[in-house]
Order: sequence, then structure tokens, then C-alpha cells
Amino acid sequence: MDFFEAVKARYTHKETFLGTPVPREHLEKIARAGLAAPSGDNAQSVSLIIIDDSGVLSRLRAIAASDGLRTAPAAIAILSDPSTQKKDTNFLKEDYSAAAENMLLAAAALGYASVWLDYILMDRQVQLAYLRELGAPESYLLPIILPIGKPDGEGSRRVKKPFDERMSYNGFGCKK
Amino acid sequence: MDFFEAVKARYTHKETFLGTPVPREHLEKIARAGLAAPSGDNAQSVSLIIIDDSGVLSRLRAIAASDGLRTAPAAIAILSDPSTQKKDTNFLKEDYSAAAENMLLAAAALGYASVWLDYILMDRQVQLAYLRELGAPESYLLPIILPIGKPDGEGSRRVKKPFDERMSYNGFGCKK
Repeated sequence: MDFFEAVKARYTHKETFLGTPVPREHLEKIARAGLAAPSGDNAQSVSLIIIDDSGVLSRLRAIAASDGLRTAPAAIAILSDPSTQKKDTNFLKEDYSAAAENMLLAAAALGYASVWLDYILMDRQVQLAYLRELGAPESYLLPIILPIGKPDGEGSRRVKKPFDERMSYNGFGCKK
Repeated sequence: MDFFEAVKARYTHKETFLGTPVPREHLEKIARAGLAAPSGDNAQSVSLIIIDDSGVLSRLRAIAASDGLRTAPAAIAILSDPSTQKKDTNFLKEDYSAAAENMLLAAAALGYASVWLDYILMDRQVQLAYLRELGAPESYLLPIILPIGKPDGEGSRRVKKPFDERMSYNGFGCKK
């Protein structure tokens, strides 16, 4: 799909997903796009776990779930390793946000819906339970999980402010 | 350009740019892609200033410049408004990182190079001087500026860790 079409196709899908499995080829393509995002000082702080095993998905859901994670046939967990950072800088949030955005667009480009799910993971105890379930080091962060699948009908789209209110030329509020 | 081609084409261009002007149509297309990124609680905390006036660009450069900003014929300043956030959450960094990544990809999709330039803006005094020069409220943040233009020869690409080291299936470190 054309890049700008993918940007238009992406939306926050909080509704249900169909059970149709997502081929690994597509999940990997999405993950590769995520890992192709830039990272501060090229520290590559992000790693990913593709989850398409229904047992693992249900155990994660049993810990905490919201939005599309309840029904999605697959998900990608975004892990962030604080030990990659230099002492005086911290680009973890920028790194995993850029990776997440690449993957949301990649999912849209392949005809899937997704959602930037971070709400349940703001509780560090939930993050730790997820990390344990996935066998990942507890020193890691797990700030975002992206449910991925075919949407059960296109979900609602959020209203955006008019473009002109958020964009100006050569000075704040200057039009053209 | 195809979405996955754009992901592949994007790289961090720290070298010089050609002086060739970037048409406003393209700058707007890039900005629209940036504002199409999701935002926490749909707060739309990001606003953008497209800068293609050489006078404004040189005044910003006189305050502080690094990498491609020294030679780029245009740039997009990413502003972030803290007043959009609820009391107990703060998604500013996620919001502007997702918007930045959309724009880096959009620039690549249109055949331009760019760079996520934040280093000089980590000094709040530099941010404030930029905000003043652009006539923007001093309550805003200006964490990133994206120089945009045709590269003067393709710049070097950073080495990435092998995909397999950063990606696993259904459990940390599990391959297939």
C-alpha cells in the first residue's frame, strides 16, 4: 500500500477483532518495520515479542486486558531495555514510540487494525507479570502491546482538530 | 511510494543537504502525515511550524544548529503543548515521537532526507529562544526539529543489530 494511504488507513481500533489468524509472514513484516525505526544514539533499546500462541495470549489476558487485546488473534509486545542507555540521556520513550508508530502503520498497510495499548501497562506490577509470563528479564520495561488482527467491522474514528489549527508557516499561527 | 519501501528508505541524515527548495505541497503533505499520528487520549498535543523562510532558518541556526539543520532548505519544528494533558497522565513524549516518526517516513516517501534533531533542544534555554523566534507561547515545548531536503549524496547508514537478536516468538528469546 502507498505510504500516505497507510497513514490514512491507520486508526485506533478499540473494538473487537475477528478470530482469523494473522500469518507469521505478516507479523514479521510488521515487526521488521518496528525495528527499522530510529533510536536515540542508535542504542536500539527496543525488542519485540510476537505473540500468536492462544495459550500465551489467554494467560496475558488473565493478568490484564483492555480494548482489542481481549479478542485479537495476535499481538506484538514492545520491550524496552534501560541498560542500553547512557548515564545522562534517556531515549527509551522516544525509541519505543517510534517503533510502535511504525508497526501501527505497517499493520494498516497490510490491511490489519491495531491499537496503541498502554493503559493497563502503566501499572508496573502488570508489566512485571507480563514480563514473567513471557520469560523476559524483570529489568526490562514492557510499556506497549499492539493487538493485531482483522477488525470485526471498521471501528469508530476519533475526531481530529482542523489541520490549520495545528499547522503554521514560519511563525506560530501564521498562515502562508 | 510503497509503505515498506518508505520504511527502508528512511535513514538518519546527518550530512549536508542540497539547497534545492522543497515545494510547500510536499512540506504540507509531510506535516499532515505528522498530525495524523495517534495521541494519548486523543489530546492532539502536537502542533507544527513549517519553516521555509531563509531568514527564519538563519536566525534559528544562529541560536543553535547541528547536523542537517545547517544546510537544509526547510525544516519542520515540532511543538508540544503541556496544557493539553490531564493531571495524572503525560503522553507528550509519545505524541511528538509518533508524529516525528510519521514525518520522517513521509519525507522518505517523497524522496527527501531528514534527521530527528533533538540534541540541541535538550537545553531548555535553546528551546525558549526558538519559541521566541517563532512567536510561540513559552509554555510550549519544542523538543524536535526536522531538517528536510534533498541530500547532497546519500549519507551513511547506521549499523543495526541482527533482526533475530531483537525479535522472538511467544517468549523472550524463543525462535519460532
